[in-house]
Amino acid sequence: MEKNIRPLILVSNDDSIEANGVHALIDVLVNFGDVVAVCPAHPQSGQSMALTVATPLRITRVEDYKDAKMYKVNGTPVDCIKLAMHTVLDRKPDLVVSGINHGSNASINVIYSGTMGAAFEGCAFGIPAIGFSLTDHSPNADFTPCLPFIHKIVKSVLDNGLPQGVALNVNIPNSIPHPTEMRVTKGCKANWSDEYRKYTDPWGGTFYMLTGKFVNEEPDNTDTDEWCLSHGIVSVVPVALDRTAPSDIDTILNILT
Amino acid sequence: MEKNIRPLILVSNDDSIEANGVHALIDVLVNFGDVVAVCPAHPQSGQSMALTVATPLRITRVEDYKDAKMYKVNGTPVDCIKLAMHTVLDRKPDLVVSGINHGSNASINVIYSGTMGAAFEGCAFGIPAIGFSLTDHSPNADFTPCLPFIHKIVKSVLDNGLPQGVALNVNIPNSIPHPTEMRVTKGCKANWSDEYRKYTDPWGGTFYMLTGKFVNEEPDNTDTDEWCLSHGIVSVVPVALDRTAPSDIDTILNILT
Repeated sequence: MEKNIRPLILVSNDDSIEANGVHALIDVLVNFGDVVAVCPAHPQSGQSMALTVATPLRITRVEDYKDAKMYKVNGTPVDCIKLAMHTVLDRKPDLVVSGINHGSNASINVIYSGTMGAAFEGCAFGIPAIGFSLTDHSPNADFTPCLPFIHKIVKSVLDNGLPQGVALNVNIPNSIPHPTEMRVTKGCKANWSDEYRKYTDPWGGTFYMLTGKFVNEEPDNTDTDEWCLSHGIVSVVPVALDRTAPSDIDTILNILT
Repeated sequence: MEKNIRPLILVSNDDSIEANGVHALIDVLVNFGDVVAVCPAHPQSGQSMALTVATPLRITRVEDYKDAKMYKVNGTPVDCIKLAMHTVLDRKPDLVVSGINHGSNASINVIYSGTMGAAFEGCAFGIPAIGFSLTDHSPNADFTPCLPFIHKIVKSVLDNGLPQGVALNVNIPNSIPHPTEMRVTKGCKANWSDEYRKYTDPWGGTFYMLTGKFVNEEPDNTDTDEWCLSHGIVSVVPVALDRTAPSDIDTILNILT
């Protein structure tokens, strides 16, 4: 395969350019094409599709990692994808890949996830996009179990594409023994309760820190990402860029008239 | 109607507690129930469903506006809704209303909108939720044309509810003459191009500021929010909290095997 026809793969994440997860991801991706990584300079967990509106953004090249060109941006994952498209890349990427996130983005977490924010933004540019997450928040998590699944999924998507407007939310359990199976499945219905811990500062003021308890609303449903993850199986959930619900138009018409 | 059975309405926005838009919204809402507004202390446009993960959040009561209790939070619109639910309210609200945003949230903008982030978060708590936006970015925009539509929509939703997981994205044109009609319609397919302006700082460094040109991909389609807005008609688009796409599972199975 000639150098100039290798696929171009744009990488981002939400744990920052320093995170081990994005380096593990690049370890796999350099086998498939030319890799450019544009990642946040600082951690951006929970940034969803936030973009920076009113402050200056800077993009800075840092040291290459393997054959990948590496850049950092003082913004969100969405900023990274947008700036990459507008300032770094000379052609449209064949694939956008985000991750590997340190922590699960299964179930309801997908709506808050910065990792998936970058993937959705790739989707908005009409590029096949995948987010990968490992269910281990540790900065020193072992990403080895992810690598064969990333290899298989990236190869398939480069070969076959994805439906327009649809990205993949891939979550990999940190189970022992390592996962050997993956399933295409549904996002589990769930919510978060007890979301804040209350503190008193040294001057008597009150502040809150995000915490929370994950509540699985369908623990017995075997056709969900949470079920897969708790049974040592990699989950692949198709997710949509479009947030509109045209099938509800008639219902809303009845409600409003 | 007795005081203790009046509906409880939780209000937020993304333009901050200082914005005229949220005060115009409250002008209408106090006619319907007990109003508690929990808004960002500082502007949060483009914050989507971002939440604050690693820094302390503070919620501070400020002066009442009319009969509404007013609070500010040093965070995002999603933080505001979550903190309101966990620290301020003693019962589940009957309605979450976000806005009135200074600027359009029609079409693709819904995915980045902090205003709609607050509405989606209301939806995540299982509460009927509505976001209102006026197509005028000015801090001194005239919100008068919005008020009869807000009155009508809020009354209908308090009376009839909304489908679980579905919120309303309401955009109001700042057209002259003022709008007299509203339609329940679809989100317009669109994208943003030329998204950044490049600058040189006093020390020779390069930075970028978000700008962009809105590109309507279906200008002749009369069944979209953009068409309504450009014809002086209020648009109501049902939007979904759920970002998963279970109808694509079989397609993805074929792609991956």
